[in-house]
Amino acid sequence: MSRVAELLEALAPIGRNAQGGYDRLAWTDADAAMRRWFLAEAESLGLETEVDRNGNLWAHWRLRPGAGMVVGSHLDSVPNGGALDGPLGIATAFAAIRSLQEAGDAPPSNLSVVAFVDEEGGRFGLACLGSRLATGAVDPERARALTDRDGVRLDDAMRAAGVDPDGLGPDPERFRGPYVELHVEQGHLPIDGSDAAGLAAAGAPLGVLSGIWPHGRWRIDLAGQANHAGTTPMADRDDPVVRAAAVVLAARDAAVTEDALATVGRMAVEPGAVNAIAAVTTLWLDVRGADEARIRRVVARVAAEAEVEPVEESWTERTDFDPMTSGAARAAVREVTGREAPVLPSGAGHDAGVLAAAGVSTAMLVVRNPTGISHAPGESAEPADIELGVAALVRVIQRISVYGVVAPA
Amino acid sequence: MSRVAELLEALAPIGRNAQGGYDRLAWTDADAAMRRWFLAEAESLGLETEVDRNGNLWAHWRLRPGAGMVVGSHLDSVPNGGALDGPLGIATAFAAIRSLQEAGDAPPSNLSVVAFVDEEGGRFGLACLGSRLATGAVDPERARALTDRDGVRLDDAMRAAGVDPDGLGPDPERFRGPYVELHVEQGHLPIDGSDAAGLAAAGAPLGVLSGIWPHGRWRIDLAGQANHAGTTPMADRDDPVVRAAAVVLAARDAAVTEDALATVGRMAVEPGAVNAIAAVTTLWLDVRGADEARIRRVVARVAAEAEVEPVEESWTERTDFDPMTSGAARAAVREVTGREAPVLPSGAGHDAGVLAAAGVSTAMLVVRNPTGISHAPGESAEPADIELGVAALVRVIQRISVYGVVAPA
Repeated sequence: MSRVAELLEALAPIGRNAQGGYDRLAWTDADAAMRRWFLAEAESLGLETEVDRNGNLWAHWRLRPGAGMVVGSHLDSVPNGGALDGPLGIATAFAAIRSLQEAGDAPPSNLSVVAFVDEEGGRFGLACLGSRLATGAVDPERARALTDRDGVRLDDAMRAAGVDPDGLGPDPERFRGPYVELHVEQGHLPIDGSDAAGLAAAGAPLGVLSGIWPHGRWRIDLAGQANHAGTTPMADRDDPVVRAAAVVLAARDAAVTEDALATVGRMAVEPGAVNAIAAVTTLWLDVRGADEARIRRVVARVAAEAEVEPVEESWTERTDFDPMTSGAARAAVREVTGREAPVLPSGAGHDAGVLAAAGVSTAMLVVRNPTGISHAPGESAEPADIELGVAALVRVIQRISVYGVVAPA
Repeated sequence: MSRVAELLEALAPIGRNAQGGYDRLAWTDADAAMRRWFLAEAESLGLETEVDRNGNLWAHWRLRPGAGMVVGSHLDSVPNGGALDGPLGIATAFAAIRSLQEAGDAPPSNLSVVAFVDEEGGRFGLACLGSRLATGAVDPERARALTDRDGVRLDDAMRAAGVDPDGLGPDPERFRGPYVELHVEQGHLPIDGSDAAGLAAAGAPLGVLSGIWPHGRWRIDLAGQANHAGTTPMADRDDPVVRAAAVVLAARDAAVTEDALATVGRMAVEPGAVNAIAAVTTLWLDVRGADEARIRRVVARVAAEAEVEPVEESWTERTDFDPMTSGAARAAVREVTGREAPVLPSGAGHDAGVLAAAGVSTAMLVVRNPTGISHAPGESAEPADIELGVAALVRVIQRISVYGVVAPA
């Protein structure tokens, strides 16, 4: 079994649920087990480990004083997520380092592996929290006060996991070199300059992401009149579940019309009794697309057609990855696959996008996902494609070192 | 302050939530506090208290050997329910007994007050559990295995509350006499032989229920394909939230068409992440109406229009209350209000309906509810109307005793 396959196999039982999916939400027991694994693996590679002020994990291969390039991803999952979204980037980074060590081929600059904490935002609702805190994109006070759906505050959850939340805050010195993230492909989005949608259709095991679509999240609160299900005439009802249903259908229609993506994946019906008309329904609307204008049009259509007032909870601009570091990634993919690297956008957000928006020179490699399914148990990649991903990561590390793009400390 | 007002005031803080509603679900701490109140009040009236094999509470005014009439209701609530649905029947019963005691006017037969456990089914999903167990309408084994949404079994919840669940089972000897329940009016349903809907429109403080509409509950499980919200084209989605929205709107349309009531008051979207297309949505459909045929037509329309397969979770036939005991209630209402008692149906289920279906001679009195709102914090009745309810209950007890309808033990 290859090194990367062994690493992924060691993670397979952690946080696995009865449906075969993964529940590795930030600061839970499963997350702690993933974090312990990271530190143990890093130490077995002789790397220097560290937990930074925001709870991100580091493994440093320090060869000389000064900053270096960073390779990484995250270890947490959405609820009932897949095995690869996040951990694939960490496992391939460790495998690449092992490969470099075994070849006696140490890069001329320092190299660090980072596992960003709480990338998915699956527990506290704010994605990419570790990278947002590190780049100053989110206020530490706001982060500490985030609560999960049981009302547990983030700072209390961190404290329970043994990390001091008082330290949260910007940490830009860690990202003076370039950042490269390898990820499983998500969906089958159109490849630049091609009619193919997704790497499988293009017959390519690896690709390079051009950037990340803009993306917003809105909350819609619908207050109705709670009442008895058996005694309230239909004409007298103010039922927030009926209004929520209209929002869901309006969002779908608007996304189709505007060639965008709109999703209601979370909905809360309160109090939630079978025999009572609900008092309140809250739903969350996630909208993405190739440009901001079409996203805003989707939300405006939903607001008008369903007569609701969506509240913007987050907005992320379109992010373009850096041509130089992405160029190294494209060259590496060409070297290991023997063909030009397909370049495609991402509809999903990533820590790499947060870093790029903060001015870090960033690139992302993606490994072919036959079904495109992600954030679900069906997420997958072929072992041979993952091996090519490790090989490409090795080449990227070597190339970036050769190009000398690492800033001095 | 009148006796019944004092009793209701004592209950006002128990299980009250921040929205001003009540969370008094079965076998919770709030329910335990309500139960302690019942036993203490009964003892202060000199009544003999008892917890029966199913966890129902009893207060006996035993004047001679043998069975007697039973007056009662329940103490639990739906989540975020009102103050009166249930407790009003218990408080008025205690106030009526005090009134009879003070007048030295003991009835010639035995009299018991019962507080049925878990009438609302708000926690374990099966309504009227205490009366269903007592009449043998539900299998004790099935009852013990019911679980709440945290996965807690009913038997474990009972044991934690200090009641042995091994005792659950039929208890028909307790209901050989007639049963009378006083309740707050729910909704504004049409009054027999009148154009008025509800007691407020009829200008009447009290009414008598003719019976309970038939009523069914269905569960609809929708399995889709979990996937990433930012990467899955709209055309490739199998989104169970979109299908659930279609069910909600189809149910509403069908109920309007068939002149029935249909409600989706509970919905679960799993895994419930903002950035993931849901894997599974489950919703519960509550349908009621004047006759079974129209209810079945509503469900058939939903099944056809939304292309779903509703699974029947419960079905309750139409129940008519007994003309004799109801006649005593009508006479009592006429005596205390000076006018004919309005007779109207109930869209809500009651323990009285379960007992009537089991052959117990049963009647229900209702106290005017100005807004009709129930199962919600807005549930209300005027103090003067409640006083008339106590007076009517006193008359019913006296009349039934005089009529000698109590079966010998």
